Amino acid sequence: MSLAAPPATNLSVDGARFWRTIEDSAAIGTGPEGGLRRLALGDDDAKMRRVFIGWCEAQGYAVTVDRMGNIFARREGSDPSLPPVTIGSHLDTQAAGGRFDGIVGVLGGLEVLRTLDDLGIETRRPIELIDWTNEEGARFTPPMLSSAAFAGVYPLDWALGRSDDAGHTVGAELERTGFAGEAPVGGRALDSYFELHIEQGPRLEAEGFQVGLVTGAYVARGMIVTIDGENAHSGPTAMHRRRNAIVGAAMVAVAANEVGWRYSWCDAKSTVARLEAWPNKPGILSDEAKVFLDFRSPDAETTARMEAEIRAALPDCARRSQCEIAVAEDWTFGDLKFDAGLLDLVRGTAARLQVPLLELPSQAGHDAYHMSKVCPTVLIFTPCKDGITHNEKEDTTLADQLPGLNVLLNAVVERAGR
Amino acid sequence: MSLAAPPATNLSVDGARFWRTIEDSAAIGTGPEGGLRRLALGDDDAKMRRVFIGWCEAQGYAVTVDRMGNIFARREGSDPSLPPVTIGSHLDTQAAGGRFDGIVGVLGGLEVLRTLDDLGIETRRPIELIDWTNEEGARFTPPMLSSAAFAGVYPLDWALGRSDDAGHTVGAELERTGFAGEAPVGGRALDSYFELHIEQGPRLEAEGFQVGLVTGAYVARGMIVTIDGENAHSGPTAMHRRRNAIVGAAMVAVAANEVGWRYSWCDAKSTVARLEAWPNKPGILSDEAKVFLDFRSPDAETTARMEAEIRAALPDCARRSQCEIAVAEDWTFGDLKFDAGLLDLVRGTAARLQVPLLELPSQAGHDAYHMSKVCPTVLIFTPCKDGITHNEKEDTTLADQLPGLNVLLNAVVERAGR
Repeated sequence: MSLAAPPATNLSVDGARFWRTIEDSAAIGTGPEGGLRRLALGDDDAKMRRVFIGWCEAQGYAVTVDRMGNIFARREGSDPSLPPVTIGSHLDTQAAGGRFDGIVGVLGGLEVLRTLDDLGIETRRPIELIDWTNEEGARFTPPMLSSAAFAGVYPLDWALGRSDDAGHTVGAELERTGFAGEAPVGGRALDSYFELHIEQGPRLEAEGFQVGLVTGAYVARGMIVTIDGENAHSGPTAMHRRRNAIVGAAMVAVAANEVGWRYSWCDAKSTVARLEAWPNKPGILSDEAKVFLDFRSPDAETTARMEAEIRAALPDCARRSQCEIAVAEDWTFGDLKFDAGLLDLVRGTAARLQVPLLELPSQAGHDAYHMSKVCPTVLIFTPCKDGITHNEKEDTTLADQLPGLNVLLNAVVERAGR
Repeated sequence: MSLAAPPATNLSVDGARFWRTIEDSAAIGTGPEGGLRRLALGDDDAKMRRVFIGWCEAQGYAVTVDRMGNIFARREGSDPSLPPVTIGSHLDTQAAGGRFDGIVGVLGGLEVLRTLDDLGIETRRPIELIDWTNEEGARFTPPMLSSAAFAGVYPLDWALGRSDDAGHTVGAELERTGFAGEAPVGGRALDSYFELHIEQGPRLEAEGFQVGLVTGAYVARGMIVTIDGENAHSGPTAMHRRRNAIVGAAMVAVAANEVGWRYSWCDAKSTVARLEAWPNKPGILSDEAKVFLDFRSPDAETTARMEAEIRAALPDCARRSQCEIAVAEDWTFGDLKFDAGLLDLVRGTAARLQVPLLELPSQAGHDAYHMSKVCPTVLIFTPCKDGITHNEKEDTTLADQLPGLNVLLNAVVERAGR
C-alpha cells in the first residue's frame, strides 16, 4: 500500500429508508398487476412529483423547476460558485410499467443526499438531484424528451408542443399540473452527470454481478412510417381496387420484424412498437395508418444496414398494398461514449468497495445519453430480475440494489470533493 | 294485350322533394370532406332521427320506437288488421361515410309514402317505414345489429349490451338519446319487406343500368382474432424472447389478405378492417392485440374454404410471433335467397315502367338479409358513382335514383293493394 493513497471512506446508504421510498412510490399510480401506470404529466405523475419535492424540501434542498417541468433539488456545496455534480433519472413510467425503471435512479439519488446529511458531510461542489419529465415517451414521443431539450437536441417550443393521443400538449399538461416552471431549460454549466438505472436486460443477473458500468450504448434508430390508402367498403370493393392502409401497415410491420431476426446473431433487434389506423372500423377500409418502428444493434454500421434494409422493403409493401408509404419522422440515439474520467472513477470506487463490476453497453435509451453531450456523464446499472422490464412484473431486491447505490454514493462524494 | 291485364298505374315520385330530404340529411353530421359522419346513436344520429320523425308525423303517420331504437312510421291501410308492407333501411353512417348509403332507402321510402298522400291513394294494407338502429356496425359491432335483433338472430339483452370503443353500451346510448322505445322488438306479423339501397359496387354504372334486382347475397363471414403476447422493453429484449402481439397481429393481417387474393378470380375478397393493440406505445412490446377480419365470396363453399385457409394460417403466425392466437368471435351472413314472389313483382314492375333491370347478388350486408328470415323480402339497388362507398366521396345523381324509386313506389302499391 502506498502512503499517498487517499483515505478509503466506504460510506453506506440506509437501505431500509431507500426501500421505503420505493414502496411509497409504488403506491402512486399502482397498475392492476402491482406495477405502475404513471404516465408523464398525468395526475399520478404529478402526485409523485409533489411527494418527491416534499421529501427534498424536508431535507432543506432548494427545489427549482424548469420550463420542461424538470425538477432540480440542490444540496449546497461549500463553494456554491462551482458547477454542480448532478444525479438524475425519471419518475414517470410506461402504461404497464414496473416500480424500478427510472425510479431507483431518482430515489437512490435522494438516498445518497440523505446519507450525506446523516453523516454531516459537506461537499465542495453542490450536488443536484434531477427528475426528468417524460423519459419513457409512452405518453409523448420521443422518449427522453426533456433531457434532450435540456441538452439542446430539440428546440424548447417543439418539445412543449408534442401531444399525446388525446391531443393534449406537453406545455398544456405542464400548466395543468403546475409544473411549468420558470427556470430556463439547460444552458448552464454542470460539473458531471451520474445516472443509476436498472439494467433492463438479463446480463448482470445471469453472469453473477450486482453492478454494471455502462461503457457505451447500442445504436438505436426509430422511425414513424406513414401509410396512405383509401376508404372503401369492406364488402364489394374488389381486391385489385383496394388500398387498405392497415394491410400496408401490417406488411411494413412484418418486414421490419424480419430485419430484426436477420441481425439477431449480433444481438440486434427491431421493434414494431405501435400501429395505428383510421378509421380502423368494421365495414370500411382504412385510409391512413402509422407504424412506429425502432431497431438497434451494438454498432453504428449494423444499425445503418438495418435501416437501409427496412427502407428498401417499403416500396415492395407499397406496391403489394397499393398504398403510398413514406418515412415521416426518424430519430437516432446511442452513438456515444461515456466519459473516460468518470468511468475510471466508478471502476476505482467499485474496486475499493470490493464490488465486482461488469462492463457492458446499454441497449435501452437513457437520459444519460443526452446528458453526455452536456457534461462528463456516467451510467451505472443494477440488476433487474430475469431482464423483465416495461412490464408490471419488473422486479428486483434491496440486496441487489445496495451495491450499486453505495458505488454511486462514494463516486459522487469523491467527484464533489470534501 | 289481354283485356284481363290490370291497369298500368305507373305512379311517379316527386324527385325534387326527395332530393331536398337528401340534402337536409347531408347537413346533419357533415364530415370534413362533405360526406357524413353520423355514427349510430351519436348526437348527430339522434338529431337526424328527430328530424325524420318530425317529417313522418307531419304527414300524419303514427310513429313507434322499439327497445332497440328502431323507428316505425305507419301509414294506415283501409284494412288495419292486415300485416303491413314495410320499407326500411338506415340513417346511420360510417365514421367517414357518404350521404346515400342507407339514407336513400329511408328517405326514398318516405317519398313513396308522401307520393301516395299527394295522389290520395289508400292502400288496403298498412305501409310501415323503418329506420334500423346501427346498421353500419361502425360504432357497435356487429353490423345490422337491430334488424338482427328484430329477426331474433341475437337476444335483445345481448344486443343492448354491445359497447363502443369508449365503453358506452347500445342500451345506455338509447336511454341518453331518448330512443329506448317501449315497443317490443320483432315478434309481430309483417306482410313483406322492401329495401332500396345504393349498390355500393360499380356494376350498375359500368353495365349501363339504373336499377338492380338483388337475387341473392355473397356469403360473408367475419371473425375477431385475439393475439396474446407479453409486455417487454423494446430495447434490450432479444428477438428470441419477444412475444410482441402487434407482430402476431400483423402476420395474421398479411395472411388473411393473401387468402383474399387467392380467391379474387371469382370476386371473393378478404378484409382486415381493424387492428387494435395494447398498450401500443413506443418503448414497449404489446401484450394484447385484436384483428377484425371479414371475407366473402359468391358462394358458401368458397367462403368456407377461405375460412379454412385463414384458420390454417393462424398456427404459423403464432409460432413465428411466439404469441397465442385464437378466433374469439365469428359470425356469418348472406347465405340466403330473396322471395321468389317479390322478385317477380319487381321484375314485372320494372318491365311495365320500361326500366331495364340488372339482376345481381349483393356483396355488402344489408338489413334485408335478416328481414328475409321474418317475411318475404326484396332488395333493390340503385347506382353508386364509380362504386365508391364508405367514403365521403360517395356520390350519385337524382336522375340515377329516380327509376329505382319509381319501381319501389309501384311495386309497394301493388303489394299493398288498393
